[in-house]
Amino acid sequence: MSRIDGRTPDQLRPVTIERGWSKHAEGSVLISFGDTKVFCTASVTEGVPRWRKGSGEGWVTAEYSMLPRSTNTRGDRESVRGKIGGRTHEISRLIGRSLRAVIDYKALGENTIVLDCDVLQADGGTRTAAITGAYVALADAIAWAQGKKIIKPARKPLTGTVAAISVGIVDGTPLLDLCYEEDVRAETDMNVVCTGDGRFVEVQGTAEAEPFDRTELNALLDLATAGCVDLARFQNDALAATLGA
Amino acid sequence: MSRIDGRTPDQLRPVTIERGWSKHAEGSVLISFGDTKVFCTASVTEGVPRWRKGSGEGWVTAEYSMLPRSTNTRGDRESVRGKIGGRTHEISRLIGRSLRAVIDYKALGENTIVLDCDVLQADGGTRTAAITGAYVALADAIAWAQGKKIIKPARKPLTGTVAAISVGIVDGTPLLDLCYEEDVRAETDMNVVCTGDGRFVEVQGTAEAEPFDRTELNALLDLATAGCVDLARFQNDALAATLGA
Amino acid sequence: MSRIDGRTPDQLRPVTIERGWSKHAEGSVLISFGDTKVFCTASVTEGVPRWRKGSGEGWVTAEYSMLPRSTNTRGDRESVRGKIGGRTHEISRLIGRSLRAVIDYKALGENTIVLDCDVLQADGGTRTAAITGAYVALADAIAWAQGKKIIKPARKPLTGTVAAISVGIVDGTPLLDLCYEEDVRAETDMNVVCTGDGRFVEVQGTAEAEPFDRTELNALLDLATAGCVDLARFQNDALAATLGA
Amino acid sequence: MSRIDGRTPDQLRPVTIERGWSKHAEGSVLISFGDTKVFCTASVTEGVPRWRKGSGEGWVTAEYSMLPRSTNTRGDRESVRGKIGGRTHEISRLIGRSLRAVIDYKALGENTIVLDCDVLQADGGTRTAAITGAYVALADAIAWAQGKKIIKPARKPLTGTVAAISVGIVDGTPLLDLCYEEDVRAETDMNVVCTGDGRFVEVQGTAEAEPFDRTELNALLDLATAGCVDLARFQNDALAATLGA
Amino acid sequence: MSRIDGRTPDQLRPVTIERGWSKHAEGSVLISFGDTKVFCTASVTEGVPRWRKGSGEGWVTAEYSMLPRSTNTRGDRESVRGKIGGRTHEISRLIGRSLRAVIDYKALGENTIVLDCDVLQADGGTRTAAITGAYVALADAIAWAQGKKIIKPARKPLTGTVAAISVGIVDGTPLLDLCYEEDVRAETDMNVVCTGDGRFVEVQGTAEAEPFDRTELNALLDLATAGCVDLARFQNDALAATLGA
Amino acid sequence: MSRIDGRTPDQLRPVTIERGWSKHAEGSVLISFGDTKVFCTASVTEGVPRWRKGSGEGWVTAEYSMLPRSTNTRGDRESVRGKIGGRTHEISRLIGRSLRAVIDYKALGENTIVLDCDVLQADGGTRTAAITGAYVALADAIAWAQGKKIIKPARKPLTGTVAAISVGIVDGTPLLDLCYEEDVRAETDMNVVCTGDGRFVEVQGTAEAEPFDRTELNALLDLATAGCVDLARFQNDALAATLGA
Repeated sequence: MSRIDGRTPDQLRPVTIERGWSKHAEGSVLISFGDTKVFCTASVTEGVPRWRKGSGEGWVTAEYSMLPRSTNTRGDRESVRGKIGGRTHEISRLIGRSLRAVIDYKALGENTIVLDCDVLQADGGTRTAAITGAYVALADAIAWAQGKKIIKPARKPLTGTVAAISVGIVDGTPLLDLCYEEDVRAETDMNVVCTGDGRFVEVQGTAEAEPFDRTELNALLDLATAGCVDLARFQNDALAATLGA
Repeated sequence: MSRIDGRTPDQLRPVTIERGWSKHAEGSVLISFGDTKVFCTASVTEGVPRWRKGSGEGWVTAEYSMLPRSTNTRGDRESVRGKIGGRTHEISRLIGRSLRAVIDYKALGENTIVLDCDVLQADGGTRTAAITGAYVALADAIAWAQGKKIIKPARKPLTGTVAAISVGIVDGTPLLDLCYEEDVRAETDMNVVCTGDGRFVEVQGTAEAEPFDRTELNALLDLATAGCVDLARFQNDALAATLGA
Repeated sequence: MSRIDGRTPDQLRPVTIERGWSKHAEGSVLISFGDTKVFCTASVTEGVPRWRKGSGEGWVTAEYSMLPRSTNTRGDRESVRGKIGGRTHEISRLIGRSLRAVIDYKALGENTIVLDCDVLQADGGTRTAAITGAYVALADAIAWAQGKKIIKPARKPLTGTVAAISVGIVDGTPLLDLCYEEDVRAETDMNVVCTGDGRFVEVQGTAEAEPFDRTELNALLDLATAGCVDLARFQNDALAATLGA
Repeated sequence: MSRIDGRTPDQLRPVTIERGWSKHAEGSVLISFGDTKVFCTASVTEGVPRWRKGSGEGWVTAEYSMLPRSTNTRGDRESVRGKIGGRTHEISRLIGRSLRAVIDYKALGENTIVLDCDVLQADGGTRTAAITGAYVALADAIAWAQGKKIIKPARKPLTGTVAAISVGIVDGTPLLDLCYEEDVRAETDMNVVCTGDGRFVEVQGTAEAEPFDRTELNALLDLATAGCVDLARFQNDALAATLGA
Repeated sequence: MSRIDGRTPDQLRPVTIERGWSKHAEGSVLISFGDTKVFCTASVTEGVPRWRKGSGEGWVTAEYSMLPRSTNTRGDRESVRGKIGGRTHEISRLIGRSLRAVIDYKALGENTIVLDCDVLQADGGTRTAAITGAYVALADAIAWAQGKKIIKPARKPLTGTVAAISVGIVDGTPLLDLCYEEDVRAETDMNVVCTGDGRFVEVQGTAEAEPFDRTELNALLDLATAGCVDLARFQNDALAATLGA
Repeated sequence: MSRIDGRTPDQLRPVTIERGWSKHAEGSVLISFGDTKVFCTASVTEGVPRWRKGSGEGWVTAEYSMLPRSTNTRGDRESVRGKIGGRTHEISRLIGRSLRAVIDYKALGENTIVLDCDVLQADGGTRTAAITGAYVALADAIAWAQGKKIIKPARKPLTGTVAAISVGIVDGTPLLDLCYEEDVRAETDMNVVCTGDGRFVEVQGTAEAEPFDRTELNALLDLATAGCVDLARFQNDALAATLGA
C-alpha cells in the first residue's frame, strides 16, 4: 500500500533542523517534518517561579501556539479571543512535561528555561515536531548558559535526549508520522514521546473512529519507537554541527 | 506489599453509583471511587451546535470542574480567575471524546447531550470516576429522551459501554486505581479508557519521575483492562436497577 | 389557602443539615430546604488579605455558585463564559456580610475563613439555605481551628448565630420560604437574615410585580422573623450532635 | 444633635436636577445630592433583546459606573481590570429593577431604553441619586419617543414616579440621606426606593456594625418614606419646567 | 467658503476651561471645544510603578474613555465588554506621551500623576481637548503637590506647556478644529500636539479617503501650529485665575 | 558621522522580500529589513463583516503580533495575558489603514482579506516592514482571487502601491530606517507610509526626548519620502518575479 506522499508505512517525512534561527534567543531551531514547520526558541532567565524559590532547583516550561494562517483555513488569534483554547493548553503542557523528563533540576540551578514553539505552517504532527525541535533549542540554551557560567559548567542538566512522533491506523494500516490528510482519516491516532534510549515519556493514544485492541496498540508502539530512534539521531547530528557554521 | 489503604495491587477502591441524584437533569449520577466523589449530570437539548446543523447527527460534549474545596487545600474558582486552566480543559476534552466513542451520532438525531462532571471530593482518579459515572448518566438521559420520543425509540444511540481507570507504578510496583497519596508518589501514571468489550478508547501514560519501558507499559495495560471490566459490570448493575427504587 | 406542596403560609419546607460532608474542609455542611440543596464548606487559612495585615483581626468571606444543571434548564458555567454574573456577585457578597455580622474579628486573630456555597440543586431559596448552612460550617471550622490552637481557644469569635429565610406575597398572601414555583409568581419577594436573638442583619425586599405597602412589609417581616427562630433551632440542634456520629 | 454639615436628622442635602445636559441622549440629567453628582442619560433604541422579541413588550435596563476619580482615592477602571466588580453589578441591577417597577411594558411597545448613570463625584448616596435622576431622564426619553411616534403617544408607559434615598443609624440616631462621612460611621445602612404614592419598590437594609431591631427598622422606614416624598416633588418640579428654558 | 457652524477655516470653536470641577482630585478641569466636553482629573500618588523604583524619577500616565452615550448612538461600555478597544488604547497612550513631553521626571521626584480624561459629550476633537485640558489639570496637581511638599517646591516639574488640535482637509480646504460632521467628511485628518513655544510633540496625519501631498501637509501644519498658540494662551489665562474664585 | 552598522544617514538596511513562504495562504511574504523579519500572510475569504453586507464592497484588515522571543528579552504572550496591549492594537490598526488606502472596495467585491503580520525577529522598524511586506502578500492574494474568479479579473482592486519606513533624529542627525539601537536613542521618531507615487498615507511623528521643530520635521519627511521610493521599487521587483521560481 502506498501513502499519499509515496512513503512506506514506517517512513518519516523529510526532517530538517536549522539551529541558530534567532539572533536573540539563547537557543533556537526551525524544525520541519515535511511541510510542518515549527519555530522553537529557548529563553533562559535567572531565577525560578515563586513556588520554587530557595529550592536550589530550576524549572523548564513551554508554550505552544499556531500562527493564524499556519493552517489551511485562517483561525482566530487566541490573543484576540482573549483566551487560550483547550488544545493549545494541552499541547503546551505536553511539551513542558516531555522536556522536563530529561532535566536534572538540581544541575540546572535556580534558572528557568521557557520553550516557545510557534507553528509557522501545519501539516500534521505539529506537537511532535515541536517537542523534537524544542529539545535541540533547549540543549543549545543550556550550553549557552554553561558558557556564561549561569549554569555550572561541570553539571549535566540534561539526563538524556527526547523526541516525539505521531502514529496512527489509517484504513486498517498502522502508519508512522501522519501528515494532515492521513491524520483526519485515521481511525486511531497516537503521539509517543521517547527518550533516546528507547523508553517512553508519554504515550497518548486516542480512538478517533473505532476503539483499538492490544494488537493494534502494539503495532503502533513498535512503529513509534523506531521513529523516535531516527529522530534522536537527527537531533544528535544537528547538535554535533558547529552552530552558525 | 500492602497499599496505604490495604488493597492488593490489582484491587479497585469501593465503587458506588447512585442514579437519579438530581430532580432536574435528564440523567444524573453521584459516583464514588473510594473518597473521590463526582456528581455527573446529563442535560438533553434538542438541536445541535451551528457547525452540525442539517447533518442529521447529534453531539455529546462534557465539562469537568472541581469545587474549590474538593481538594486538601482550597483552590481558586476558575470563574473568579476569569479563565479555565489547562488541566480542566484537558480533562473536559478527554471525557467528551471518551463518551463520543460509544455514540452513534445518526441514531442520536439532531440532539445535544452535555455531561457536567463536578468533583465534590477529590482523592485521585477524578477523571476516571467522571468518565465512568458520566456514561451511566448519559445512558439514563438517552433512555429519557427515547421515552419522550426526542430520540427515536427504535434507534440505539449507544454502541457500547465505556469506563476508565488510572494505573501507575509506585515504588516499582504497578498498581490499579491510585488514590491521591499513591498518585503523588507514582513514577509513572496512566489513565486508560476502555469499552465494555475490552478495547481501548484512550491510553494516556506519563512518566512522572522516570521514563518507563515496554514491560512496565504492558503490566499497566493488563491491570487497567481488568479494572475496566469490573467497572463495566458495576455500570451495568447500576443501570439494571429500577431508577428511583 | 393551600400551597403547592401543601404547607401552611408560615411553614418552612423540611430542613436537613448534614455536617462533615467533606473529608478535606475544616467545616462542611450539606443543607437542604426541601428540594434546594447547597453544599457549604469552610476553609481556614492562617493569615489575612494584604489590606488587613498587622491589624490583629481576621476575615471571613464567601463565594456562591450554582452548578450548571442545578436548575431546570442548564445554565452556562461562569468559568467558561470567563466572567461572574451580577446575581452571583450579589449573593456572594450577601453571604459574606451576613456571616461577618456575627464575627468578632479580634477573637478570630489574623486568620481567614472562606465559605464556599455551591448549589447542587435549586428550588428557590438558595441564598437563604446557603447562609443558614454556611453558619454551621463556619462554627465547625472555628471549633477545629481552636482545637488546633490556630484561633485562641479562650476567645469567642462567634458573637451569635445567623440564619436566613425568604418570604413573599403570592396571590396577595404572605408566605414563608418560597419554593421556585411560588418565587416566580410572587408579587413581592424578600430575603431576611436574622441573628438567633431575633435582630436583623439584612432585609432585602423587592417589588417584583407591584410596589408593596407598609402593612405588607410588616406581615412579611413577622413571618421571616419567626422562620429564622426555627432555623436557629435547627442549627443549634445540628451543632449539638457529635460530628461524625 | 447636629450633623457634620449642620442638617437635622430628617433633612435631605440640597438636591439639584438639571435636565438636557447632553445634546445626544434622548433624556439626560445631571443630578446632585449635596456633593454627590451623577450624570444620567436615557438612550432609546427601537427593538428589544432577543428573548423578548415578538412579545409586543419593551425593556428598560441600567448601567452604573463610577469615574475613577469620583472618589477620594482613585480607583482602577473596570474596563482596564477587564471585569465589573460585584458592587457595580449590584447597583446596576438595582437601578434597572427600580425603574422597571413604574414601567408598563405593553405601553412601551417593542422599544428598549438604557439608563447610564455615571458618577462624576461621590459623597455617599450615589445609587439613590442615580435612581432619582434616572427617573427624570427616563421620563424625558419617553416623551421624546412619543413625540417621534416611536412609542404610541396615546399610551402611558410610566405608571408612576420612582425615587430613592439612603437612611442609616449613626451613633444611635436614625439619619436621612447620609453623606460619605456619615455612611462610613453608620451602624446600619438602608437604601429605600419608593413610588410617588409612598409604596416600596426596594428596601435594602444592612447591619454594618450591629444587628438592628424592629423599632430601629421602623424609624428608618419612616425617615425614608418622607424623604422620597420630597424627592418626588423635586422630580415633578423639574419635569414641569420647559426643557432647555 | 463657509463652514457648517459659520467659522472661518482657521478658527477654533469656542473654548472653555473650568478648573476645580472635582472636590476630590488634586487637579480637575472641564474643558469644552464647542460641543465636545471632556472631564479631566489629575490624581497624585506618592511612589512610582515597580520598574521605576529607586530611580528618583516620577511618572505621568493617562487613561481616556468615552461615556457610553457621549456619542450620537450609544456605544457599549468597555468594562461590560471586558476589554479596551484599540482606539481607546491609542488615545490613552497619545495623551500620556504628550504630557510626559513637558515633564522633568527628576523634578517630579518619585511621584505618579494619573490623568483621567472622560468624554462627557463628543463632537469631534475629543483627544485634542483631552490633552489641552489634562495639561491644566496636571499643572494644578503639581502646584497642589508642591504646596503639600510632596514635590519639592523649588523644582520645576513642568518644562513648558502642551496643547493639541485637529486639522483636516474637507472638500479640498484645510480646516482647523474639525467638528464631528467635518471629521467624517475629511479626506485627510491630522492631530497635532505642540508645546507653547511652537515645537511639535506629536504629528499624526492620516489619509482617510485620498493620500495627501507635501503642500497639503504643510498647509495643515501651519493651521495647527497657529491653533496651538491660541490654545496655549487659553491655558495660561485659565491658570492665571485664582482657583475657586 | 557613521552609523552603528556603517550605513549613511539616508541608507536603508538590506531589504529582502521572499514570496510564497506559506503553502496555505493566498499570499505570503517573509520580509526582512536588516535583522527585522516579519512573516506576512494574506487570507482571502468570500463575504464581508456584517456591517458591510449588501454594500457590494470588500474589506481589508490586519493583525500584528510579535512572537514572545522576537525581542532581546522574552515578552509574555498576549494570549496568555488574555488581552491585547495598546501597542499591538495601535500597529494592527495602522497596517490596516495603510493597506486600505490603496484599495478600491468596489473592485474587491464582497470579499475580505486579512493580513497577518507576525514578527519573527525584531530589530527596529517592525511596523514599517510589516506594511511593506503585507502589501506584497496582498497583491499576491488579489491575483490569486482574480485567477479563481472570486474577484472579477477585469477590475483593479489595487489603486497603487504602499510602503512604509521609519526615520528619526539621533544625536541631532536625521536618519533613515532606524535599527533598534538607534531607535532607543532617538530624540524624535517618525513612521511614514507613502504610496508609490510619493504621497502620504500616514505620518506619525513623536518627540521621544525633545520637541522637534519644522525644519527637523521637513528633514525627516525628505528622508522618508526617498526611502519609500526605494521600497516601492523592491516591492515591484519582487512582484515582477515568477512566484515559486
